[in-house]
Amino acid sequence: MTKVQPRTPSGFGEYLPDQQIEFNRLVDIIRGTYEAYGFSPIDTPDMELSEVLLAKGGGETEKQIYRFEHGKNDLSLRFDLTIPLARYAAEHEHELVFPFRRYHIGKVHRAERAQAGRFREFYQCDIDILGSDSQIVDAEFPAIINEIFDQFNFGEFTIRLNNRMILNGFFEGLGLESSTDVLRIIDKMEKITDEEFVAELTNIGLNADQVNQVKNFTSIEGSNDEIIAQLQALQVDSEQFNDGVSKIKVLIEALRTMGVPESRFKVDLKIARGLDYYTGTVYETILNDHPGLGSVCSGGRFDDLVSHYSNTEMSGVGISIGISRLFYKLLEAGVIKPAQKSPADVVVMPIGEEQVQFSLSVAATLRKEGIATMFYSEPNKVKKKFQYADRMGFGYVILIGDKEMETGEVSVKNMETGESSSVAVANLAKAIQH
Amino acid sequence: MTKVQPRTPSGFGEYLPDQQIEFNRLVDIIRGTYEAYGFSPIDTPDMELSEVLLAKGGGETEKQIYRFEHGKNDLSLRFDLTIPLARYAAEHEHELVFPFRRYHIGKVHRAERAQAGRFREFYQCDIDILGSDSQIVDAEFPAIINEIFDQFNFGEFTIRLNNRMILNGFFEGLGLESSTDVLRIIDKMEKITDEEFVAELTNIGLNADQVNQVKNFTSIEGSNDEIIAQLQALQVDSEQFNDGVSKIKVLIEALRTMGVPESRFKVDLKIARGLDYYTGTVYETILNDHPGLGSVCSGGRFDDLVSHYSNTEMSGVGISIGISRLFYKLLEAGVIKPAQKSPADVVVMPIGEEQVQFSLSVAATLRKEGIATMFYSEPNKVKKKFQYADRMGFGYVILIGDKEMETGEVSVKNMETGESSSVAVANLAKAIQH
Repeated sequence: MTKVQPRTPSGFGEYLPDQQIEFNRLVDIIRGTYEAYGFSPIDTPDMELSEVLLAKGGGETEKQIYRFEHGKNDLSLRFDLTIPLARYAAEHEHELVFPFRRYHIGKVHRAERAQAGRFREFYQCDIDILGSDSQIVDAEFPAIINEIFDQFNFGEFTIRLNNRMILNGFFEGLGLESSTDVLRIIDKMEKITDEEFVAELTNIGLNADQVNQVKNFTSIEGSNDEIIAQLQALQVDSEQFNDGVSKIKVLIEALRTMGVPESRFKVDLKIARGLDYYTGTVYETILNDHPGLGSVCSGGRFDDLVSHYSNTEMSGVGISIGISRLFYKLLEAGVIKPAQKSPADVVVMPIGEEQVQFSLSVAATLRKEGIATMFYSEPNKVKKKFQYADRMGFGYVILIGDKEMETGEVSVKNMETGESSSVAVANLAKAIQH
Repeated sequence: MTKVQPRTPSGFGEYLPDQQIEFNRLVDIIRGTYEAYGFSPIDTPDMELSEVLLAKGGGETEKQIYRFEHGKNDLSLRFDLTIPLARYAAEHEHELVFPFRRYHIGKVHRAERAQAGRFREFYQCDIDILGSDSQIVDAEFPAIINEIFDQFNFGEFTIRLNNRMILNGFFEGLGLESSTDVLRIIDKMEKITDEEFVAELTNIGLNADQVNQVKNFTSIEGSNDEIIAQLQALQVDSEQFNDGVSKIKVLIEALRTMGVPESRFKVDLKIARGLDYYTGTVYETILNDHPGLGSVCSGGRFDDLVSHYSNTEMSGVGISIGISRLFYKLLEAGVIKPAQKSPADVVVMPIGEEQVQFSLSVAATLRKEGIATMFYSEPNKVKKKFQYADRMGFGYVILIGDKEMETGEVSVKNMETGESSSVAVANLAKAIQH
């Protein structure tokens, strides 16, 4: 028979089981935390009608869409989970309870130029709250990020916080008509020199005084309280600015109340997160030991999510964790270290045919006690059985021969320490759980 | 602004949050049980190169594939999880440990004619073991089905078992050269009359004696042991037949050892599961109260899974649960009854602005104790707050006003009984868990 070379399309990856187990463990942490805060799951189709998906106008993303005709339908694979959320919220507006808090963990597709660490298929893990103007809900997101990354255990991390109202209000106070250009320059200020920064601001028409004030503003540093005090001391003549400062104060107070360590969140006036999307709080998350990854969890507050589908005004706030890229990069860096190839930590192995039934019942007993247990029934020599157990990374091997069947005491080998002990079947679960 | 009507493509569905919570609960049961038996997760791309996906030749399914060109690639969305498994096993042959036990829960796409209960996108939940000839592993699948459907709690169910070797061996013993036509007729015998059955067998060339023997064979009934005794009494002159009978005996013995109730598995000689795919054990699962659904979990043993990709011979055995259709049908029938719209059972509500910080800390305390808790911060009247809690289906509402802050005792309302009690914050978790 002619063979076809088994391979995935370029830009599409997959993991070996030990890696997949680790990936799933991280996703479970995300999901568990989202649910602990009462976010409800949704799951939308992988594809949408192109007319619906591109209602907003595609712009740059449109080139990256997998779009095709099928029968009479013009279909596109979703490239994020935000547009499907807007469509879902508008379509089910009268069936949903607002504020609508949903999480969505799913695959999205983008036909990006393939390069290392860039995938054409990846998971997004989004949470959003739609239809609430309460500033308190803005504080739930950093609290959630804190819990998730604390469990991830990738070292310390910093959640950078800002509020677009502070930025926009400050520019308003400076007498600037549009803040878009200034924001664009601030957004990249960490990547350019001081001189370039000044030159660019001058280029777009700021006078020397305005340039100076922008420089002073973006160099405000210190503890969270110190930054807020400095902002207040600026005495900016803008209601928007003062609103923004009040809102970030509320945010910080709530984070302290919820027990988020002060070292993990930081007001950073340089964070803008894109040019026109966000309107209030914005978030970024940096792994302190891996700053090169950039932000691993970002988001913010936005107005008017569903305007392309409905007349209802619906504001929202949310974050997204780009788990696929984060996982890939930390796996590559050796920070994530896959170990087990099976979700079971225990394997039960009969020495021969005669011990099969007894061994099956031992495995069943362990599962009843809540211990995931694999049964290994290949008719191999004991040495090969242990080789298998070793390659799979099992923590415990329970080997059952004639003697074990007679006495009802089985041999449990701790694969880490290499120690074996004899344990009565009734006490097995306890012996394995310690 | 011109509005686009928010809608999903025809044949693509999605659920409201309360339904999604129930759907996810079922998937979690499936996943948890697969993992309890030591099956490892994999996750392959939604799309494959068409050349790879269609290596076997598409046949009927080819018409149902979402296939499109993108750049230089001819891509197709996967229509099942079996071909991706074959491709994965062949591609990673030298990195995997065999026998390779994997589970895979994921979406597949088929451009079927849209009709009620038929979806163009649905989940499959597959487990397979590749590279084991041990008949004992065949017994793990009914044991797993038993645990899953026991937890589903959709009433009693019957796992129908057969072995293709018994069927093929029996026809061999009858002197029939090809069994394909006979199998096709047996496969549909429950849908046709006795006369039609005889006529069809005669049509394909069976003589009266052969027809009689087939009739006798397919009418063998009784307990599992009785059926096996009757099969042995037939004294069929076929090694394959006798092998098949031995294998099904091993299967049954193992199921008993693993504690699967005898009422839930039944040897049924009429089960063939398609014409040429399976070569050994075959499985079907019927919900006793919903026979109209047909088989809700099927599978079997097959040879030579990866022959289109590799020279390695790799046999396998596995099952698949069609959870999307099962869920849809039982939701429609009112058997599945969604209740909560949030994964959290508890909501904490401050009466006014002054209680927000204290309330946040109460919610954080509950989450630390492992209780999923929503915080509700909309500045509404108490009546509206309770309306919200009621619509969301929360089990407990914790309302916090000035008095509660002073005394440190909060009001917990059990929404089912309507009873309220005053509980110290330190005892809240215990009070809610009972």
